[in-house]
Amino acid sequence: MDLISFQPTDEETAFITLAKTLAEEVLRPAARSSEEERQAAREWTIKANELGFAALELPERWGGMEMTLISQAQILEALSNGDLALVQGLPGPGDAASFMRLAPENQAFAAYRRTGEGGQWPTVAFLNACDPGVSQSINITGASFENGYVIKGISRPVKMAAFAAYLLLAAPGPDGKTRLFWLDKEQTRWRAIPGDYRLGLLASGWARVQFDDLTVTKDAVVAEGRDADRLLSRALARLRVLEAAKEVGLMTAALSYATEYTATRRAFGQELAKFQGVSFQMADMAVAVQAARLLVWRAASALDREEPEAPGLSLDALSRAHRSLRLVTDSAVQLLGGHGYVQDHPVEKWMRDAAAQIALNGGEQDLLLRRGEQLLTEERETVS
Amino acid sequence: MDLISFQPTDEETAFITLAKTLAEEVLRPAARSSEEERQAAREWTIKANELGFAALELPERWGGMEMTLISQAQILEALSNGDLALVQGLPGPGDAASFMRLAPENQAFAAYRRTGEGGQWPTVAFLNACDPGVSQSINITGASFENGYVIKGISRPVKMAAFAAYLLLAAPGPDGKTRLFWLDKEQTRWRAIPGDYRLGLLASGWARVQFDDLTVTKDAVVAEGRDADRLLSRALARLRVLEAAKEVGLMTAALSYATEYTATRRAFGQELAKFQGVSFQMADMAVAVQAARLLVWRAASALDREEPEAPGLSLDALSRAHRSLRLVTDSAVQLLGGHGYVQDHPVEKWMRDAAAQIALNGGEQDLLLRRGEQLLTEERETVS
Amino acid sequence: MDLISFQPTDEETAFITLAKTLAEEVLRPAARSSEEERQAAREWTIKANELGFAALELPERWGGMEMTLISQAQILEALSNGDLALVQGLPGPGDAASFMRLAPENQAFAAYRRTGEGGQWPTVAFLNACDPGVSQSINITGASFENGYVIKGISRPVKMAAFAAYLLLAAPGPDGKTRLFWLDKEQTRWRAIPGDYRLGLLASGWARVQFDDLTVTKDAVVAEGRDADRLLSRALARLRVLEAAKEVGLMTAALSYATEYTATRRAFGQELAKFQGVSFQMADMAVAVQAARLLVWRAASALDREEPEAPGLSLDALSRAHRSLRLVTDSAVQLLGGHGYVQDHPVEKWMRDAAAQIALNGGEQDLLLRRGEQLLTEERETVS
Amino acid sequence: MDLISFQPTDEETAFITLAKTLAEEVLRPAARSSEEERQAAREWTIKANELGFAALELPERWGGMEMTLISQAQILEALSNGDLALVQGLPGPGDAASFMRLAPENQAFAAYRRTGEGGQWPTVAFLNACDPGVSQSINITGASFENGYVIKGISRPVKMAAFAAYLLLAAPGPDGKTRLFWLDKEQTRWRAIPGDYRLGLLASGWARVQFDDLTVTKDAVVAEGRDADRLLSRALARLRVLEAAKEVGLMTAALSYATEYTATRRAFGQELAKFQGVSFQMADMAVAVQAARLLVWRAASALDREEPEAPGLSLDALSRAHRSLRLVTDSAVQLLGGHGYVQDHPVEKWMRDAAAQIALNGGEQDLLLRRGEQLLTEERETVS
Repeated sequence: MDLISFQPTDEETAFITLAKTLAEEVLRPAARSSEEERQAAREWTIKANELGFAALELPERWGGMEMTLISQAQILEALSNGDLALVQGLPGPGDAASFMRLAPENQAFAAYRRTGEGGQWPTVAFLNACDPGVSQSINITGASFENGYVIKGISRPVKMAAFAAYLLLAAPGPDGKTRLFWLDKEQTRWRAIPGDYRLGLLASGWARVQFDDLTVTKDAVVAEGRDADRLLSRALARLRVLEAAKEVGLMTAALSYATEYTATRRAFGQELAKFQGVSFQMADMAVAVQAARLLVWRAASALDREEPEAPGLSLDALSRAHRSLRLVTDSAVQLLGGHGYVQDHPVEKWMRDAAAQIALNGGEQDLLLRRGEQLLTEERETVS
Repeated sequence: MDLISFQPTDEETAFITLAKTLAEEVLRPAARSSEEERQAAREWTIKANELGFAALELPERWGGMEMTLISQAQILEALSNGDLALVQGLPGPGDAASFMRLAPENQAFAAYRRTGEGGQWPTVAFLNACDPGVSQSINITGASFENGYVIKGISRPVKMAAFAAYLLLAAPGPDGKTRLFWLDKEQTRWRAIPGDYRLGLLASGWARVQFDDLTVTKDAVVAEGRDADRLLSRALARLRVLEAAKEVGLMTAALSYATEYTATRRAFGQELAKFQGVSFQMADMAVAVQAARLLVWRAASALDREEPEAPGLSLDALSRAHRSLRLVTDSAVQLLGGHGYVQDHPVEKWMRDAAAQIALNGGEQDLLLRRGEQLLTEERETVS
Repeated sequence: MDLISFQPTDEETAFITLAKTLAEEVLRPAARSSEEERQAAREWTIKANELGFAALELPERWGGMEMTLISQAQILEALSNGDLALVQGLPGPGDAASFMRLAPENQAFAAYRRTGEGGQWPTVAFLNACDPGVSQSINITGASFENGYVIKGISRPVKMAAFAAYLLLAAPGPDGKTRLFWLDKEQTRWRAIPGDYRLGLLASGWARVQFDDLTVTKDAVVAEGRDADRLLSRALARLRVLEAAKEVGLMTAALSYATEYTATRRAFGQELAKFQGVSFQMADMAVAVQAARLLVWRAASALDREEPEAPGLSLDALSRAHRSLRLVTDSAVQLLGGHGYVQDHPVEKWMRDAAAQIALNGGEQDLLLRRGEQLLTEERETVS
Repeated sequence: MDLISFQPTDEETAFITLAKTLAEEVLRPAARSSEEERQAAREWTIKANELGFAALELPERWGGMEMTLISQAQILEALSNGDLALVQGLPGPGDAASFMRLAPENQAFAAYRRTGEGGQWPTVAFLNACDPGVSQSINITGASFENGYVIKGISRPVKMAAFAAYLLLAAPGPDGKTRLFWLDKEQTRWRAIPGDYRLGLLASGWARVQFDDLTVTKDAVVAEGRDADRLLSRALARLRVLEAAKEVGLMTAALSYATEYTATRRAFGQELAKFQGVSFQMADMAVAVQAARLLVWRAASALDREEPEAPGLSLDALSRAHRSLRLVTDSAVQLLGGHGYVQDHPVEKWMRDAAAQIALNGGEQDLLLRRGEQLLTEERETVS
């Protein structure tokens, strides 16, 4: 059986081409200024919405594109090649879109759906407080939804929370069961606490989310218990692949830039001695990018075709994307030497964006751990 | 555009299935004994020929299968999962088949073609004395073919040279030009010098090839100068992918075995503390195998479709296969601890076979170096 | 405070010099033949005993040298540079010597002490069945020593068990407590089961130890419970450093050989292109060896001075020695290419010996795991 | 012979203790604010000079401390544990001090010596334009010093150039010979071009140095030709060890912080599942720091004792310091997950400082390349 299945429609192909153009003409030129202003330029956010980039993952019956993951992977790779921070800072449903795609008739999403179908898709932030690998302290107390569950605590930084009107929250309840909540900021008054961030992805609207004894009742519940586990699990598999695709875009930018820089200096006869060791650093980077891309395509294909191995493959794709991303962005800065330090060259920003990306997306070790546990558990089931 | 293209014919699919069966029923059981005897059991070699495994790469007009590389990759992966040494020790045209496929009307191959079309394909060994990354000393002197070129020297170990009736030799001539020679052992009297090898792939018929002032004239020439460079270059790209596919087979065997071993011990509650660190060693191995396989499929597809990036992708596939192979076979031995040392478990043989495979196939550094040079050269051409 | 303390006596200095001479004149030349015969040549074993190499770690009051660990580290490094398998196959008290050094008045050792003081030190094998990281199945049943504990099971391969007259066994009792037993083969009839090993360290007398319902009473007990834990823990710290020192010797041999081989070929103008990538592989290997050696010296110093960090440092030294050993021996085989495969060059044997050494000595992951746990536990104690 | 020699005087011991106190009480608290202001707080710079930290490397006959490298290594490690950027931004002779120590009677330094002996040591920046591994374009034209050599061009960022009154410049002359120049800013008018840097080490006064057809005559020459090569070579060996020592300080800070953070969360029962994979990441980091420190001490000892291997060991120390620094600071950010992104925790600053440090100090590959070349050349000389 074929490992990768990609049969793009004309519309998908057009989107991919458009993404490449936008990356070059809008995103890359806006990278530095949006970092300074800590947010995306208006023009890009409006354009992105108009062109439909916010709706790629949304259900068709909502008017979204409900595009295959493998096509979205290529679009996101192309856009992120322009600037990852701007991609992470795209207004719209964001990560919540995958949940909406998997549960399009869910009542909790109904109001949002009506708003979006009407005009623009408001910005949603997604906070996964069920993730053991992430340090935070969100606490839910109370005994039932009738009396109201109370949410209290402050989260780690969440992307786009600074600009979001809605929050999708996954958190373990007092009974240990998973719950997914849909929280409209106007009604539930969760707060976005901005911070003075320095590392990277500065244009992506990061803010910590604070819950001051926020009460939630049944209306706010998207799913709970096993339904919530299943929905969360399936959505996370999709989100990992999408993140990995973005990382492939960023690493590709760094690789291209470093290759061109190195080749140009060679062409002009500069520092010839240095290049003896460079050849295979370049090759190492190239293979790392290739492998990461193929793993993304493989995982995307598997999810599109609902193969049973798909969740495991999504862990592979993201963990390897993290590793390749770190290798490539670190190497690019080193290869440029002193030029890697200055702003004239984008590699130092890419390194910072990469570091932020990996820190805020689970870390490589954690993904490998999960994957290993899964492999050993599957095996044990086979044996017994 | 799709990265991987795999549309197997029914015949190809049947071959892949057959390969899996043979690996399990014939190759794996014969692994230890063939290592002790330093050659494949008769039954396997006869069967392999009968079933057509020797002819996968041969031209259709010769009665060969001229199969796509991507299908061959899967067949070789499946067979090598049984035992790599036996695959490397398959009688028949061996690596020379890729040259024959690319130049089916070449006069130098005519006699061999007639013999093979008649019954069985005699064994051919391939010696690449043009490879700077390989240490050996083959020397060609003389001024022209009319007077006869004289070949003198002794090579590194060459697979199947112990049993080969023919030798395909690539060597730089006294004028620096590349030459490809077809040397019938009965006529040209090259000698196979066996050795007392201990490391691995012991059943693959390794022997050094010695030339005692062997004279060759025009009859023996397959190609020379730029024709030879081109043919050699194209054949090597195919051969790298086929080697990488075999390595994926071996690493898959090691990964499966280690996973089952580890999961079983967990199931039986043994050494529970140990397993905390094992989970992500397993995941690391799994991703390494996955990435290697995808790179093989990608390179195979690219060669089948004659994409310009194909040669570079073949370098990627083999260099990454080497790295993943080393990681997985080393880890498998470590994971089995004391059991990794004893013969009851195949992992120690797999580690030795892997080490021999990598040492005798160019080494990872060398491939990365070439690939890097190529990337920087391509880039420079783009820039200027 | 100084990190490393080395003030050798004249006798220690003389021993180190002697070790270097023996390595070059006796051990290295005997490497291949002892591997074939699966045991050390008589001449070496007699000489080793005469010269006192068996008694370096034994207590002074027994007539042993009770040498500092840092001096022993240098002696073992020098000898192992000659041949590691022969060092592991040295007759005498072996690993048990560290236990004897730490508990010289222990009654269980009295008879052995008398024998050794009289003439030669008989060979002892040490089996650590308490090690969770090692897969084996030794089972002790019974309720007390008066009635006799019964040992049943078969171990992983143990070095020198094929030739040992005594066995020092560490095993968890039926009550979970650690027990150390001294088992005289003539009296207790444990059995050495030889195997057909292929991987490496073939001259080190490996055999599995089998217990067929062997009954032990108080006489056989060296220590139990917390005394046993303490003694085992202290002895293991010493043994790790000594193993790491041996590994430094083997990796130094491989590095020297590969450096000379590579430099020679360059000098003679061969394969010039290849060498571009080789320079820093060599440097990488050199730093790896250096770092491993410094960590051994540091840990040895710390143990000699009884610093509290010493046990942790012994874990560091052995885990890094494993990693550097694997890197250097693998790289040496790759650098020699085809020559790395043949017996004319020792690098393939060194790779096999290295693989066996690491597999049978705990594996890197396991050591790092323990060390990490220890670091986090110490930290927590500091915090609270 | 002992690998490391450390016999501190009471004064040296006192300095080391003082450095630890200052790191904790002054440097660490000032880290964030000095980064924002792009320079060290006045109080620290004044204090540093008063206490003599600017004069550690200066010749005794100048009133400097002319301290052993191994003691300086420990002082710099302690200070950098507080904040690396502030250490790199220390006013005073900076890197030029090593040149002054090696050539204390050199006429070019006479005026500087008089100034410093009188009161404070003015700030000097050092620019090595001979370094092929660093990308820049400094061009010297002209035929002799009588007529004046003309320097033209702009360099990569140089630390403390923003505040320096003097520049020590190493550059290849039009005849290819190395020349070292002493350039007083008031007289020779070289210019410091500040930049808008974002990556790290922002408090270290980086600026590019620009030469607008600057004419230099004999007065400005410190050394030329082989004298210059020798002085440069010897000074660089010292400077590498001092840089490596600073890196050990930074990585130690990151390791301690991450260890405490991780252990604390475990103590409070948080995210227990996560920690399974963390244990050996911590151990890996700990060994990396240990190895780096030992290599610094070894190289420092070797330079203090003028051992012939010392220059090679300085390359080892810095290349391994780079690698360990990257591993530890990257891991620390990952281990803190979301907390690794925010300013409340110093790990994100440490990652950025580390990246800048490595980029602007030669990169690991370059050092390994040089070291490898040296190892192979030494070997060839031994062989022939």
